[in-house]
Amino acid sequence: MSFTRRHLLGIEPLHPSEIVTLLDLADDYAEATRRGERHGQALRGLTQINMFFENSTRTQASFEIAGKRLGAEVMNMAMQASSVKKGETLIDTALTLNAMRPDLLVVRHPHSGAVNLLAEKVNCAVLNAGDGRHEHPTQALLDALTIRRAKGRLHRLTVAICGDIAHSRVARSNLILLGKMENRVRLVGPPTLMPAQVAELGVEVTDDMAEGLRDADVVMMLRLQKERMDGAFIPSEREYYHRFGLDAAKLAHAKPDAIVMHPGPMNRGVEIDGTLADDINRSVIQEQVEMGVAVRMAAMDLLVRNLRAA
Amino acid sequence: MSFTRRHLLGIEPLHPSEIVTLLDLADDYAEATRRGERHGQALRGLTQINMFFENSTRTQASFEIAGKRLGAEVMNMAMQASSVKKGETLIDTALTLNAMRPDLLVVRHPHSGAVNLLAEKVNCAVLNAGDGRHEHPTQALLDALTIRRAKGRLHRLTVAICGDIAHSRVARSNLILLGKMENRVRLVGPPTLMPAQVAELGVEVTDDMAEGLRDADVVMMLRLQKERMDGAFIPSEREYYHRFGLDAAKLAHAKPDAIVMHPGPMNRGVEIDGTLADDINRSVIQEQVEMGVAVRMAAMDLLVRNLRAA
Amino acid sequence: MSFTRRHLLGIEPLHPSEIVTLLDLADDYAEATRRGERHGQALRGLTQINMFFENSTRTQASFEIAGKRLGAEVMNMAMQASSVKKGETLIDTALTLNAMRPDLLVVRHPHSGAVNLLAEKVNCAVLNAGDGRHEHPTQALLDALTIRRAKGRLHRLTVAICGDIAHSRVARSNLILLGKMENRVRLVGPPTLMPAQVAELGVEVTDDMAEGLRDADVVMMLRLQKERMDGAFIPSEREYYHRFGLDAAKLAHAKPDAIVMHPGPMNRGVEIDGTLADDINRSVIQEQVEMGVAVRMAAMDLLVRNLRAA
Repeated sequence: MSFTRRHLLGIEPLHPSEIVTLLDLADDYAEATRRGERHGQALRGLTQINMFFENSTRTQASFEIAGKRLGAEVMNMAMQASSVKKGETLIDTALTLNAMRPDLLVVRHPHSGAVNLLAEKVNCAVLNAGDGRHEHPTQALLDALTIRRAKGRLHRLTVAICGDIAHSRVARSNLILLGKMENRVRLVGPPTLMPAQVAELGVEVTDDMAEGLRDADVVMMLRLQKERMDGAFIPSEREYYHRFGLDAAKLAHAKPDAIVMHPGPMNRGVEIDGTLADDINRSVIQEQVEMGVAVRMAAMDLLVRNLRAA
Repeated sequence: MSFTRRHLLGIEPLHPSEIVTLLDLADDYAEATRRGERHGQALRGLTQINMFFENSTRTQASFEIAGKRLGAEVMNMAMQASSVKKGETLIDTALTLNAMRPDLLVVRHPHSGAVNLLAEKVNCAVLNAGDGRHEHPTQALLDALTIRRAKGRLHRLTVAICGDIAHSRVARSNLILLGKMENRVRLVGPPTLMPAQVAELGVEVTDDMAEGLRDADVVMMLRLQKERMDGAFIPSEREYYHRFGLDAAKLAHAKPDAIVMHPGPMNRGVEIDGTLADDINRSVIQEQVEMGVAVRMAAMDLLVRNLRAA
Repeated sequence: MSFTRRHLLGIEPLHPSEIVTLLDLADDYAEATRRGERHGQALRGLTQINMFFENSTRTQASFEIAGKRLGAEVMNMAMQASSVKKGETLIDTALTLNAMRPDLLVVRHPHSGAVNLLAEKVNCAVLNAGDGRHEHPTQALLDALTIRRAKGRLHRLTVAICGDIAHSRVARSNLILLGKMENRVRLVGPPTLMPAQVAELGVEVTDDMAEGLRDADVVMMLRLQKERMDGAFIPSEREYYHRFGLDAAKLAHAKPDAIVMHPGPMNRGVEIDGTLADDINRSVIQEQVEMGVAVRMAAMDLLVRNLRAA
């Protein structure tokens, strides 16, 4: 079964074979880019609109580069400065853009579910670039591709996801994807930063890094989402780093060839030791960014093929 | 007589045959876009600069999509963040951009007449994307195209323009265009939102929706420009909606096949009932947005042809 | 010797023959643009990222137009709204963008030396678009090209640089370039706006405009950088204009065919008389802007050639 969806709204609805199809194409694009090949045709003449209701320089840039590499006309809408301020609803904004007949709509929104709602109203393909605490599918896919390239497979791996799980759509999408591909996932972090229903997730949970990282193949650090905390108890950054920040000592509990990941932007000295983040023998953080462009190229390419077939 | 101007600064200077030439080309572009045809050549290699001294996500997006569909390189200048802040005058800003040799300059400015002033100083083609309370020609043209497509003609129609006439350049440009094409125009709204010299306009004026909408072919609602009110008496939104908001009961006074228009962004429940706005049998609001792109493609195409012939 | 560098970080490291190579190519591009020729191939398929940590509408627009004229995909990163706000370091931001594999990075930064630091970390070609009080090489190059076109040569000229020298990277880069090409440079301005080590520069310094402009071939006015003053003594604008503002009377001390320059944006009536700024027989201010695009095209073209040869 290949990738037959109209939208990419989350990892939840994807079949494992769809994930593999997407990663295979992304891998081809990554290699072609490394060889300096110019792609340029898959989205030629098409219009991609980036609607970011939350700022995200890196994700927006990644989608923009991906679209332009494939020949799309890319428009960035500064939604903070937009009609939204004039009292227009999200749906009216979406209908308005839809009437301009774009082919691809990339949406980031602070509310969980907003992107799904929007996708129901428009004729073009919609990609979720992160909605509230819900999903961030291209991040999970780029993490998956990075893992697969480093480990040679994407199943039967032990993956420790560490830090602020509660506020992280990255964690959520990764958890779903890694589960679908039959990996063993452990969540590590302070109880105050664990989601309320963590027991129902069916994964191992611990607040002890040594235990959580034991024999892990992959150590995935998360960003402390200070801007989402609103009142939740957080330890001081120093204490947080002491107990949960990744350094060489804590990493020693993982497998000797374990890789270190971080979705960025990093708080060096809070979630992760700066030297470790830069250690090209362990850290694949830069490769994650590189794979981000490739995954977004693949996702938009596949969605547009489906749009044309429809 | 075809379209021979160097700039598109307003509806006022246009001959009816120029309007028809522009609408005919826009109609062709609209149909080509619907068929999924890629145009791409008319503005190939040309530089279009969007200078918006007032935010307008939708109008700027429409001009950007229009330019890119025709192959232009489009640049958006964030004029709020620009040299204007460093004390540079509008004219110096325009001269500076002009020296970079763009082909098309799309300008929105809060002051009436600013775009005309600017057009005198530059070598490229200038399009007015709205200046103060003066003109918004592409809006009037897209409204005209939408009407012509729905009604099969653009003359001898009864058009009711309703709401905040005083603050609306949209109303003003529409009034001029519809007058040139020999339509009957009625202005409907509270006296406090009528322009001071309304008696001189030579159109019917009323503050009664039933009277204003009687046998109308087109009902054109305007946005309550709250941001432009500065001190003018406004009724409460609830009272405004009761007396002037368009709903099924008020629309019943118009012809049975009357169409409903709104330039957006809409204040649902203030100027217009949300259900009516979404009723595809009556509302052409989405089509207005679609025609906006087509009209801007046609306008830029024609201006560039004149630029080359010069 | 032709232009063999990987980056354009300043005028300081350039050999005079490299400057000539760059200006010759820029001159060709300027003429081709005037003839309406479309260039479009030198940067085809390449990605240019503009990272402006300080706002500069005109410089950013110039780089964007230059890149697009040569076929590049140009991305503007709004660095104020970026991950920098989320606590990410400059280097992490640079490494992240670098991982997306751009070909050209154009950087403006408020700190002297920041662009050099960044260039050490990335694989692409870096262009300095102004860093603190350090360098602004493309400005000096566009000034040089403007002078060469007006005067027929770029050596043995007397150039008076006037005004706020202390806060000006424009002055600094120009001083270096004009010195390398064996011109005579005079700095004119109030002692409070002279750099601390001015005596070491080996140029004539005066606070008297009559003396400074005597027999000058070129009078280069600088912008009063009010936003950089933080506490330094500044005379009132009126007094400043009286003593240091360029008007016809002061210009009479220069050669009869002396040209007048200003990097913009101008404070008319402060640094320069408005009528003089607009006098096309004396002022080359608009040509400076035009040459800015040409110089940036040439610089990016040459850097990309070197990137490919590497």
